[in-house]
Amino acid sequence: MKLATLIKDANGNSLGRDGQLVIVSRDLTRAQPVPEIAPTLQAALDNWQHMEPELQRRFTEFEQDPTAGETFDPKRCGAPLPRAYHWADGSAYLNHVALVRKARGAEMPPSFEQDPLIYQGGSDIMLGPTAPIIGDPRWGIDFEAEVVVITTDLDQGSTPDQCESAIALLTLVNDVSLRNLIPNELAKGFGFYQSKPASAFAPVVLTPDELAPHWQSAKLNLPLRVWLNDQPFGYPDAGVDMNFNFAQLLAHCCKTRALGAGTLLGSGTVSNKQQGLWGSSIVNGGVGYCCLAELRMYEAIEQGQPSTPFLGDGDRVRIEMTDQNGMSLFGTIEQQVVAIEAS
Amino acid sequence: MKLATLIKDANGNSLGRDGQLVIVSRDLTRAQPVPEIAPTLQAALDNWQHMEPELQRRFTEFEQDPTAGETFDPKRCGAPLPRAYHWADGSAYLNHVALVRKARGAEMPPSFEQDPLIYQGGSDIMLGPTAPIIGDPRWGIDFEAEVVVITTDLDQGSTPDQCESAIALLTLVNDVSLRNLIPNELAKGFGFYQSKPASAFAPVVLTPDELAPHWQSAKLNLPLRVWLNDQPFGYPDAGVDMNFNFAQLLAHCCKTRALGAGTLLGSGTVSNKQQGLWGSSIVNGGVGYCCLAELRMYEAIEQGQPSTPFLGDGDRVRIEMTDQNGMSLFGTIEQQVVAIEAS
Repeated sequence: MKLATLIKDANGNSLGRDGQLVIVSRDLTRAQPVPEIAPTLQAALDNWQHMEPELQRRFTEFEQDPTAGETFDPKRCGAPLPRAYHWADGSAYLNHVALVRKARGAEMPPSFEQDPLIYQGGSDIMLGPTAPIIGDPRWGIDFEAEVVVITTDLDQGSTPDQCESAIALLTLVNDVSLRNLIPNELAKGFGFYQSKPASAFAPVVLTPDELAPHWQSAKLNLPLRVWLNDQPFGYPDAGVDMNFNFAQLLAHCCKTRALGAGTLLGSGTVSNKQQGLWGSSIVNGGVGYCCLAELRMYEAIEQGQPSTPFLGDGDRVRIEMTDQNGMSLFGTIEQQVVAIEAS
Repeated sequence: MKLATLIKDANGNSLGRDGQLVIVSRDLTRAQPVPEIAPTLQAALDNWQHMEPELQRRFTEFEQDPTAGETFDPKRCGAPLPRAYHWADGSAYLNHVALVRKARGAEMPPSFEQDPLIYQGGSDIMLGPTAPIIGDPRWGIDFEAEVVVITTDLDQGSTPDQCESAIALLTLVNDVSLRNLIPNELAKGFGFYQSKPASAFAPVVLTPDELAPHWQSAKLNLPLRVWLNDQPFGYPDAGVDMNFNFAQLLAHCCKTRALGAGTLLGSGTVSNKQQGLWGSSIVNGGVGYCCLAELRMYEAIEQGQPSTPFLGDGDRVRIEMTDQNGMSLFGTIEQQVVAIEAS
């Protein structure tokens, strides 16, 4: 089943802070509101056990009638949850962690292989797929392409198996990162705040069954595709070199607290280990990257300093995942930077 | 104006995940739902400019008729926002920061006097005032009594003055902290996650006008009172030694992002500088503390090691703020520890 949240009607008028839940055809061409089942995605997640079968039934009917619904316009979409109650972001691809640390001269402690890194993000404003990235280029604006799961309720102390069962939906995120603000902020010891502004989400969420057979053992085994200014930038496989699966990450989150329905957990920047430093970029025959920081790290190792700048005014990032037939699964995140000069 | 959120009806039945908004009499004895204005506190905050005058009018009428409404029972209350979209917690009392750091052998960098410490917390499950603290005593369970502001919408880049105008409501929080999980977690560099489980809130929220003349320059100039197992533990003044006021803290939060209506920002553990180490505890004639960690720090300095344990099964914490006449402003946070053995 595929779902999305419209935040504008066909005339461009607001559909409210939480938008309107729609079912979306598998080919992403048609959509239909389902107010008689649930007005918003959060309302559906609040009662997922009852809502999911209802929505699945409607989705099946909708797929069978190609004339049903209206045109699906991702520009009218917000984030699937335009505001959410919990946004935690893991860093499950340790290759990314090791590289980003290396770039600032720090080693990765061996404990990181057993103890997942997770940060708590702001969830009051989740951006839609085409929202601009508004920031000061002096902040070092970077993208981070990731896979996200959305859960139902989870009790404190839930096991990885219980966590896996609570994964209701999947989607993609661009976890925008302000690299030049990170070192000073992390040095203070309280984690990210200013350096992790609002994130943008793909327009469409999928139930795990929709991703079979690529969804296995709480990992999504498909390449995550990133373009920078229309040039291919990366397509690492999200199922490769993921040191903790989503069930393990969620169990880490649940150790000391319960999680509410509609919790979003990100995978961290997808990153594949590859042989040879320069082999990693697409122009050098590799699978490339899901953020600029990794490319800049390779450049620093090879050339003594990074040569690719962070994002500037007008730069465009595109993030998408396709199935084995090239069909877009979640729709596309397409963001453009709007530079401001911050005081 | 005083408001609260009921999560149970008089028969103990759930009033839903977001509960029911009620206006509360100034003396905290009576309450009345206002569904014709707003069903929930979040709904009121979403349209605060229009809702606040309506609610204020109803509150004035309610105060004038002492027979109106039903008995206000804080045991039926959830957190004012039982789930929220943004919970950020500052650490504006640098005396607390310096002491807690000293306890782990770390100095406070001078930059902390200009650059506020703020961490992002989980907001999907905000506990009501009498919810138990469920945790493993090996985690080192501690309380942290704080003042909290709740805002309307704020644009990215808002100034301190704009932020001060956006403060809609105030209340109190017990920001439960798991001291023995903190060092390892902070060493990973991504901030708190497991070491900051769900926080409990006072039952009642107040508009700033209700706190005049104690609400001045975005600080609340009243003692915050804490009892541990019915013994007075602290009553430091929340307006004293607060190095950043709420407007400055909010402006820090807004630097790279907008904030949505219903954002909660905590002050950090209230802590007053006092002359002499032992003078600080109440039994030694001081104003005492708002967390165990500070007392343990003093003990470590004086005796070589802390002698007061963290919280164990059955321990009870009470947090309250009263006006100059001894009247409770926000109602009382009263939590008891329920010990579990975590795997």
